[in-house]
Amino acid sequence: MTRRDRAREIAAGRPLLSADPFTVTWLSGLATDIEIGPSPFSVPPVVVLLPDGALLAVASEDEAGGVGEGVEVRSFPGFAVEEVDRPAESARLVLDAVAGARELAVELATLPGSVAAALRDTELVDVRPELQRARAVKDGDEVAALRAAIRVADAGQAAARSALAPGRSELELWTETRGAIERAAGSRVPVLADLVTGPRTAEVGGPPTGRVVGDPDLLLVDLVPRVGAYWADSCATVAVGERTAAVRQAHARARAALARGVEAIRPGLRCGELDGLCRAGLEYPHHTGHGIGVAFHEAPRVVPGSDVALEPGMVVALEPGVYGDGFGVRVEQVVLVTDDGCEVLSGHDLRL
Amino acid sequence: MTRRDRAREIAAGRPLLSADPFTVTWLSGLATDIEIGPSPFSVPPVVVLLPDGALLAVASEDEAGGVGEGVEVRSFPGFAVEEVDRPAESARLVLDAVAGARELAVELATLPGSVAAALRDTELVDVRPELQRARAVKDGDEVAALRAAIRVADAGQAAARSALAPGRSELELWTETRGAIERAAGSRVPVLADLVTGPRTAEVGGPPTGRVVGDPDLLLVDLVPRVGAYWADSCATVAVGERTAAVRQAHARARAALARGVEAIRPGLRCGELDGLCRAGLEYPHHTGHGIGVAFHEAPRVVPGSDVALEPGMVVALEPGVYGDGFGVRVEQVVLVTDDGCEVLSGHDLRL
Repeated sequence: MTRRDRAREIAAGRPLLSADPFTVTWLSGLATDIEIGPSPFSVPPVVVLLPDGALLAVASEDEAGGVGEGVEVRSFPGFAVEEVDRPAESARLVLDAVAGARELAVELATLPGSVAAALRDTELVDVRPELQRARAVKDGDEVAALRAAIRVADAGQAAARSALAPGRSELELWTETRGAIERAAGSRVPVLADLVTGPRTAEVGGPPTGRVVGDPDLLLVDLVPRVGAYWADSCATVAVGERTAAVRQAHARARAALARGVEAIRPGLRCGELDGLCRAGLEYPHHTGHGIGVAFHEAPRVVPGSDVALEPGMVVALEPGVYGDGFGVRVEQVVLVTDDGCEVLSGHDLRL
Repeated sequence: MTRRDRAREIAAGRPLLSADPFTVTWLSGLATDIEIGPSPFSVPPVVVLLPDGALLAVASEDEAGGVGEGVEVRSFPGFAVEEVDRPAESARLVLDAVAGARELAVELATLPGSVAAALRDTELVDVRPELQRARAVKDGDEVAALRAAIRVADAGQAAARSALAPGRSELELWTETRGAIERAAGSRVPVLADLVTGPRTAEVGGPPTGRVVGDPDLLLVDLVPRVGAYWADSCATVAVGERTAAVRQAHARARAALARGVEAIRPGLRCGELDGLCRAGLEYPHHTGHGIGVAFHEAPRVVPGSDVALEPGMVVALEPGVYGDGFGVRVEQVVLVTDDGCEVLSGHDLRL
């Protein structure tokens, strides 16, 4: 069953209306430019999935180009010299698309207020949790997109590793790393990243600063680029100069935790169990892992107590860490759950 | 009158409730991380301005740190191992803050649907156009922030100019340019950019690609970084190798158009007139200019027919261009409208 079919099942005979950015991307393929925040010349796109399976996307004409096959676009003007009331234009197109429906499946929190206000007499059924769960199992085209994104993350990891040298600032490492990511992708790429060195590694993560790499020193680099509509994820911890025994031990424990997780993953394993297997003996103040897809963090969450069972087609990042006295290490790989285990999709170097 | 006072005047005795990202930043100082798009661990922040002048910001605890002085924060959990229904938490805090109000001033299009639905019995008065107009005149702290952002754009322009050389790709120029911007800012910085070379310059703009610079060649580079909460803007067109007569003439005409505009700017000048002065004899398919602030494009718009009069404290970017046969040029400066003219804030090199 494709994701569109799964969404129809959730909507249960009603039209589905969503402006949730992840749902929009998941259903329509539209991945608008996010690196510069909301555009004064646009309104976030909205999707409408009709009970007959027809899928409409309401989007700025500047942003409508990325829709997938079989998606009908209804657009309003983008960047223009003329004055355009884009929120009103978008709302009109959305309301037209669902005119006459007495019940709608929606994601209420992200519905534009003007659309919600105009639908006062329509029964709105919030299906956000169901849609979030449905995204966990990937279709074949999604796995292909994730593989491509992970290759780009791999290129970034290689660049960060080779850029690391005493005397260079975190921002310099970052510029080279991001440059390699964008060269690998052939275009600009949004990247969520932790890039911390020295004592900052104990803080789990953070953005690059002007801090200068010492000798010896440690780099913790977690790279999460979006390539097309899909996010990759990856983390490594790399040392320059002498590796102390404490650092080597912490790194070995993090790698062992990751290996235990990868070894255990198979359909039916509960995410809480998986979390416990990785976390055994370690104390990291974050999840063990999470799904990735059109969002950089989505279902299934690998956290204590979760009884969500792994299924073939889920794509999960595992990222155990060890944060010690004045330093921290973390390693991360992404795997695809298969019929009888998993395939590691990540290809980057995990060595210290 | 400060911007908070101007907003109270617009709300006319009602509480003002807005989730418009620009209004939120303008009133509260909150400028959340935009480079990675919407976060699965957050909900966009919301501001409530009460009739007595108290200002509340409802935001994720991960994002609440940037609020300005005198803003009360009410926060919900950010990144967490536990399950948190953040949209519900945010909506609850917002509805608490306006409980009992019979009328609210709002920006309806950007109001969360769940909040709009819960306010079915409240009179909602949409004040979006008035708030957009009010942002045009900057307070002193806003001008200081814009100056700082423009220094960073200047650093980017200098880097792009010195990186330009035959044999290098647009993406390489981009990496160096952005690296210089982030070094100047001391942190990661969101950047909207046109970076096009060769025949691509005729297309007005676009993102950097793998295209390799030839000899001779032309680079059109428009850099719009956000530093803190405020955006800069800047454009130059730079040649490498021989400058043909056509390129030199086009560039001279664009510079003359910009100079005419800068020379003419003073309080009372209508934006339509300013547009006409710059555009005289040229045919560029875009606005002549626009305000900048918490958005990279805001009031006043310098477009044909606008009867908006310039006022002291407005900050306006002017960017006339000449797009010819197989190439294009554009130059841009940002000015602050003063009591009797304007001050050019941009410091970058405009030479061909």
